[in-house]
Order: sequence, then C-alpha cells, then structure tokens
Amino acid sequence: MSPHGDKSDAAEEALVAETEKRPISTILIVIAMQTEALPVVNKFNLTEDPDSVFPKGVPWVRYHGFYKDLHINLVWPGKDSSLGVDCVGTVSASLVAYAAIQALQPDLIINAGTAGGFKAKGAGIGDVYLACDVAYHDRRIPIPMFDLYGVGLRQACVSPNLQKELNLKVGKLSTGNSLDMSPQDEASIIANDATIKDMEGAAVAYVADLLKVPIIFVKAVTDVVDGEKPTAEEFLQNLSAVTAALEEKITQVIEFINGKCLSDL
Amino acid sequence: MSPHGDKSDAAEEALVAETEKRPISTILIVIAMQTEALPVVNKFNLTEDPDSVFPKGVPWVRYHGFYKDLHINLVWPGKDSSLGVDCVGTVSASLVAYAAIQALQPDLIINAGTAGGFKAKGAGIGDVYLACDVAYHDRRIPIPMFDLYGVGLRQACVSPNLQKELNLKVGKLSTGNSLDMSPQDEASIIANDATIKDMEGAAVAYVADLLKVPIIFVKAVTDVVDGEKPTAEEFLQNLSAVTAALEEKITQVIEFINGKCLSDL
Repeated sequence: MSPHGDKSDAAEEALVAETEKRPISTILIVIAMQTEALPVVNKFNLTEDPDSVFPKGVPWVRYHGFYKDLHINLVWPGKDSSLGVDCVGTVSASLVAYAAIQALQPDLIINAGTAGGFKAKGAGIGDVYLACDVAYHDRRIPIPMFDLYGVGLRQACVSPNLQKELNLKVGKLSTGNSLDMSPQDEASIIANDATIKDMEGAAVAYVADLLKVPIIFVKAVTDVVDGEKPTAEEFLQNLSAVTAALEEKITQVIEFINGKCLSDL
Repeated sequence: MSPHGDKSDAAEEALVAETEKRPISTILIVIAMQTEALPVVNKFNLTEDPDSVFPKGVPWVRYHGFYKDLHINLVWPGKDSSLGVDCVGTVSASLVAYAAIQALQPDLIINAGTAGGFKAKGAGIGDVYLACDVAYHDRRIPIPMFDLYGVGLRQACVSPNLQKELNLKVGKLSTGNSLDMSPQDEASIIANDATIKDMEGAAVAYVADLLKVPIIFVKAVTDVVDGEKPTAEEFLQNLSAVTAALEEKITQVIEFINGKCLSDL
C-alpha cells in the first residue's frame, strides 16, 4: 500500500519472475523412509555425503549426485538411534527439510513417499498422485484464526505440464502424525477434501513456504484408508511393491524437470 | 562392546562430567506464545536481536540480554505471516529450537509455557509444574517399535534441588498438536501417565536430545482438561493471569540457576 511496499513488492515479483525463467539446477527430494528412498538412490547412483552438511550426531542422511543438468539431493531423516526405526512424522521431516534447504539452497523440493488413499475419492493401491495442496488433519485449535493456522493449508507449485505429460493423478493431501485415523482425523480429512493422507507433507510444505522454495508432492498409495483391511497391515504388505512404482514416477518427474524452468512445469 | 566403543563411551562420559561441573552460562528459553514470552522479556530487560541469528523471512524472534552470570536468550516462533496468530505446535517449536541451538550453543534449554492440567492428577489453575518427562499423545503408529517412536518419551534434566528449593510441583507432560482432546488423545495421555498437556514440549525435547542439550520444562496450568469448562474458553480466560505466575517462577528458576552447574540443579 505504501511506496515502500510497492517497491518491495515489485522487486520481489521481479525476483520471482527471474527465478521462474532460470533452468532448475538443484533439486531436494525429501523422503521419510529408507525403503522409499533406496530405489531412487540406486536408480540415480546417488552417494552418501562423506562430509555431512548436517550437525554432528543427528541421524539425517543426504545422498547426492548429478544427472544430466541436475544436482540431485535426497535427504532422509534416518533411523531413531534408540529404536532403529525410520524417523517418520512432521517434526523430523520439517527439521531435515529446514537444515537441507539452508545447506543446499535448492530450486525445487520434491516431497515423495507413500500415502493412504481414499477409494471414495478414486484412489487405489499403487496410484501415484501429484498433490495440488496440502493441509493438516490433526491440529485442532478451536479459537478463531488459530483454527486456520492449525489446518495450515499450503499450495504446491503449479505444474500442469508435468501432470499432463506424466499422466499423474491429482488430489489434495492431508497430513497427520498417526498412521491410523481417528473419527476426529476423518472429519478434518473430509473438511480438507483430501484424496490421500500422509505423515509429513504439510510440515515439509510449511518449511518450503517459510524459506520460499517451490515444492511438489509425489505420493504413492500403499493402503486404502476407507477399505476393509487394517491400515498398518496393508501398508506393510504393499510397501515394497509400491515404492517401486514410486521410484518409476520419480524418475519420470526428474527426466521431465531436467532442462526446464519452474514456469515450464 | 568393542575397544573402540569403550574408548568413545569413556570420552563421552568424561565430556558430560566436565560439562556438568562447569557453571551454566548460556540459557535458551523456548516459548510458543508472545503473551507467555513478554512478561519474561520485560522482567529481564531482554532486547530483540537487530541482526537476527535466523534466516531472512522467518517470523522467529530472539530476545536476549545478560543477568548476573547468565546470557539469557528467549526465542519465540513469532506470528504466522498470513493469519497473525502465534505459530504454536510442534513443528514451529522444533524448528526455532533447532535453529537457536545451532546459533547459540546453549548450556541449558528451558521450555516454558502454559498447559492444560488434569485435576484427577492434582493439577489446578495457576499451578506451575516442572515436567520430569515428556511424550506425545497424538502420534499413533501401531507397528512394533514405531509405536514407541510415536510416543517419543524423553527425560528432562534431573533437577531435584531446583524442584525442592522452588517448591515446584512435578508431573509428566504429554504433547499434541490440538488444543482440545479427542478420546484417542485421552487414552494416550492416560498411557503416558501425564498430569499436564501442552502443544510443544515433546518436540522441543526431541530436538534437545538430538543435539545433546539438557532441557527442563516449566509449565503453568491455564485450564483444567477434565473440568467443566470448554478448554478454549478457559484457556483464553486465564492466559493473562497465569502467564504472570509463569513469569514469577521463571524468574526464580533463573535466579536459582545463576552460578550453578548442571549437576547442582
């Protein structure tokens, strides 16, 4: 509104426009589980960083390598040092995403992984989705404005060409820290109009938005939330096969991105 | 188990022992809401950092100053840029804690703030608790070991002298991203044997544990979760008065810490 505001807005717009016209060079893939990460690591011959960009003692792992014109970085929050399981969920994902963005200054983030899908919204096992937006379903704060903060809706980078070229399904993603779904989670997921459900997306989106890095979400369906089978059982049963489908799509996404600008996506 | 392991364990133990015998010098107070932070900022004449230790664009705020032998740093995740409300919850708290620890290398973290209390466990409005341990109540992952990872139990720094000298109540703290409490949250809170309930503690504890910084939790009760009144209403009604009680206790904690080592707490 003020002259200063106009100037700063104009400068920011010019910067955004310039960024959108520069070919994408450094990408950061954020993945929560080793099982999801390794097929991509192997496919692109990524290697583990001998001198970690992360602080001493944290379990976070960065793999990286070069493919055509791209510097590919894949980060994974690693295993819990006491329990030996992948550090899934919003806190670990947001921390590793934050630290990696600070260290690597990527042009684009790809948050990839597995998700639950709702058959009522058309999702089936093995489907790979490009999420158009993402929100939380387990942050209920019934105070005006805090309620919206809790939902934390964020938009993915607009990518109509990517979606069309790769024939990806598109749907809304909802994030929460539980693998199961309580009735309260379900009500929020319905309010979010979500087709898929994960445990990290909205947190990685929050960090990307804070640090002004465009982000896309590639999520493969391991279990049908509104189906017959218990989620944990179906998730474990399909994890390995679905991560193969996920790797295939990520490979196509990377091929598509190579040589392109953000505005081409 | 191996000779290398023994050596490394011994070196680490020696380092811990040395740290515990050195007077505490730099403290980091992590607080989620401005209303909770400002009484402490004013009491100790802390000033906002003109050259932020945080990246450009993030809303995180650091106040700091000196009091007796202590360098006091207070960080607050700031206001959401679109919605204007405090960035409460686990993701913001863990990010600002991580960035502040990296920048300031504190000797001790104090995660302070308001909490809900359970009258069935003896809590009443205005009570100030020192949490002995902290866990999550909204990360249900029903797969062996992942279930324990979800609970995320962490211990506070042992501080029997602090507790006795200041006559603080002691209880277990349970953390979740919702202000309200679903039946599933309640079951987990009971399993956690918690007396108080907040929205950040377990996440700040996770970061402190990752980066090996001792932490204590000072939490003041704004609302009785198992009482008659709706939580949001009672929380807003008591917030201002209870933050005054919280500031008083934090002042006493800082007075007590001054000149002491971790092993004196």
